[in-house]
Amino acid sequence: MDYTFSNRVGGLKPSAIREILKSAGDPGMISFSAGNPAVESFPVEELRRISDDIYAHDAGAALQYSVTEGYAPLREQLKKRLSERFQIDMTQNELLVTTGGQQGIDLVTKILCNEGDTVICEEPSFIGALNAFRSYGCNLKGVPLEEDGPNLEVMEEILKTDKRVKLIYLIPTFQNPAGSTTSLEKRKAILELAERYHVVIFEDNPYGELRFAGEEVPTLKSLDRSGCVVYGGSVSKILSAGLRIGFIAAAPEIFGKAVVVKQTTDVHTPIYNQMLAARFFEQCDLDAHIEKIRALYRRKCGLMLAGMDESFADCVQYTRPEGGLFLWVTLPEGADMPAFVKRAIERKVAVVPGSTFMTDESAPCRSFRMNYSTPSDEQIKKGVAILGELTRSLKG
Amino acid sequence: MDYTFSNRVGGLKPSAIREILKSAGDPGMISFSAGNPAVESFPVEELRRISDDIYAHDAGAALQYSVTEGYAPLREQLKKRLSERFQIDMTQNELLVTTGGQQGIDLVTKILCNEGDTVICEEPSFIGALNAFRSYGCNLKGVPLEEDGPNLEVMEEILKTDKRVKLIYLIPTFQNPAGSTTSLEKRKAILELAERYHVVIFEDNPYGELRFAGEEVPTLKSLDRSGCVVYGGSVSKILSAGLRIGFIAAAPEIFGKAVVVKQTTDVHTPIYNQMLAARFFEQCDLDAHIEKIRALYRRKCGLMLAGMDESFADCVQYTRPEGGLFLWVTLPEGADMPAFVKRAIERKVAVVPGSTFMTDESAPCRSFRMNYSTPSDEQIKKGVAILGELTRSLKG
Repeated sequence: MDYTFSNRVGGLKPSAIREILKSAGDPGMISFSAGNPAVESFPVEELRRISDDIYAHDAGAALQYSVTEGYAPLREQLKKRLSERFQIDMTQNELLVTTGGQQGIDLVTKILCNEGDTVICEEPSFIGALNAFRSYGCNLKGVPLEEDGPNLEVMEEILKTDKRVKLIYLIPTFQNPAGSTTSLEKRKAILELAERYHVVIFEDNPYGELRFAGEEVPTLKSLDRSGCVVYGGSVSKILSAGLRIGFIAAAPEIFGKAVVVKQTTDVHTPIYNQMLAARFFEQCDLDAHIEKIRALYRRKCGLMLAGMDESFADCVQYTRPEGGLFLWVTLPEGADMPAFVKRAIERKVAVVPGSTFMTDESAPCRSFRMNYSTPSDEQIKKGVAILGELTRSLKG
Repeated sequence: MDYTFSNRVGGLKPSAIREILKSAGDPGMISFSAGNPAVESFPVEELRRISDDIYAHDAGAALQYSVTEGYAPLREQLKKRLSERFQIDMTQNELLVTTGGQQGIDLVTKILCNEGDTVICEEPSFIGALNAFRSYGCNLKGVPLEEDGPNLEVMEEILKTDKRVKLIYLIPTFQNPAGSTTSLEKRKAILELAERYHVVIFEDNPYGELRFAGEEVPTLKSLDRSGCVVYGGSVSKILSAGLRIGFIAAAPEIFGKAVVVKQTTDVHTPIYNQMLAARFFEQCDLDAHIEKIRALYRRKCGLMLAGMDESFADCVQYTRPEGGLFLWVTLPEGADMPAFVKRAIERKVAVVPGSTFMTDESAPCRSFRMNYSTPSDEQIKKGVAILGELTRSLKG
């Protein structure tokens, strides 16, 4: 039988990163291409103890169907965290537990955007979000990302001229892939723009807990007075990515629609997983645990930057992140990026070509993304030295 | 801020069942309204032992990101089961692990249906599927469900006259909500229709393992030679509903598109959960476990039917299921169904009004759904006696 697929998925391709991840599984390959948290960041012993307790006392509830909104004690813990840690006013907002942060993006797109509507995003941006927007037939318009956040003139020009903008998607803190953080001034200006043009902002903040340098910047959601911001978060980078627990915090109207759509999507997020996370929040010292992760990434990022400072050619530019998992490297003008990535793979070092993160993947791009959370110290040293060699050969 | 939602979700309402489930949580309420498997059906001790083993030996992998297609050992086990137990040719099909059976329906709708396309379904049908179709702006056309399956003349008439039919959604075995099973003859005829009119069938089979009477009927998928059938299954009714593990088996082209869309939806189904299920399949006696569940439901269904035979008024009709979780009761002509359900709730017995399961929820409907897997024996006896009293008062 020949199948006719829907228009919305006709042009959708598998995520290049997930394809690269597969090849990065080759033995001997040094992978800077993952987006995984370090395995050492998972509090295995605590989770094991909590899991024992769940099976001993609450197995029935943990293995049975539950409500779509999420496990009540987990919702309470997450609300408390958002309020205390990120100054988000949870008396004005509701919280929905999602199956990973990705599902929050998917649900919000589904409830807000018709096919042909426009989503504004940073250029570059997170491929998983871009593909979610594409999967609903949205039109992507990129705003160049500068050191202190998206270019506001370009953003306003789009808002002014395109009446179909429904959503602005931003990762203001430790951006993926760029590693940069949007300044407070720009955050305030973006909020004003969203209110003036009556557009919802999705603030994706999966890395917000992972600051290891510099000063805290308030979340967009904490500055939001009109209810235009949907805040998306996740426990993937602080507890476990495989548990698939994320959440959105949003105005009650948006929450209500998201609940209805989540019912049709997966009914509810697995309940054992939600119990595990809730009890970790209740029983363990989350701040102490996160401090360990920060120290780990501070060291690993420092190691990677030190290697790059030492061995990368002067003509190569890169961000110096204050948190998160990624840094962003830009080769000099005229460099052949696909050839560079291919040579790196031949030398057994995997990076993600920057075009992956662009609204138009076919446009030329001289950047690539590097991850420091997954590789070992040895791999970081060795892989960076190899990339350095390749950058130096660019000059010759 | 006033929000403008997408057309596709503008008219979507929360599932009436999940709302009823909430009220069914009232203390003293006898709930025949759930769709939950019996808590006793979860193999808690085996899962606990397997969980210990995962935390002891594979915690890193269990808590880390993984591939979208699903955990390889679980995919192997599920393929083996489909091949051996349901005679599905897994050399011609691929298997994708989904976050519950619901996600399989959601993904297949998303990849096949444009807004305004038609989905044919049985009338009545599973509310979760109907709402998934609605959430993509599909047009629902119902085919009356007879004792031996959907009315073929009506189905063919729709296929003949409506050029936008993209999908036929069926629960051929122990249908939800009707409890009926489609005959082999009708299955063959439906396959022929689908092939002739070039339409994909989604065969939803969450209850297929739960036969407690009568003779096995081959799955549509096992009879499928053209690749027109997507088979959807789940471990919710045999291992645990809260784990949220389902799957689809389909032709490689459909599988490929579903993988890409799942990436944008939740990246992958939680990996600990998949490991747990895989090892249960590998290490435990699944058939013996399922036999216990069948015996349990055989007894509970028998108890409910015996009570109904004894106390329900003669003018009331109901199905006598050979498996699954539900039976379907139809009041005599002229009965006021909403008033009946309301009186039942006042007497602390919850059932689901049949209109919930209709393509047009506002059309008059004299039926309701009863579930026997969740209530205790005592509750079944007491609740059925109360409903019986109410049916007898209908005559007066």
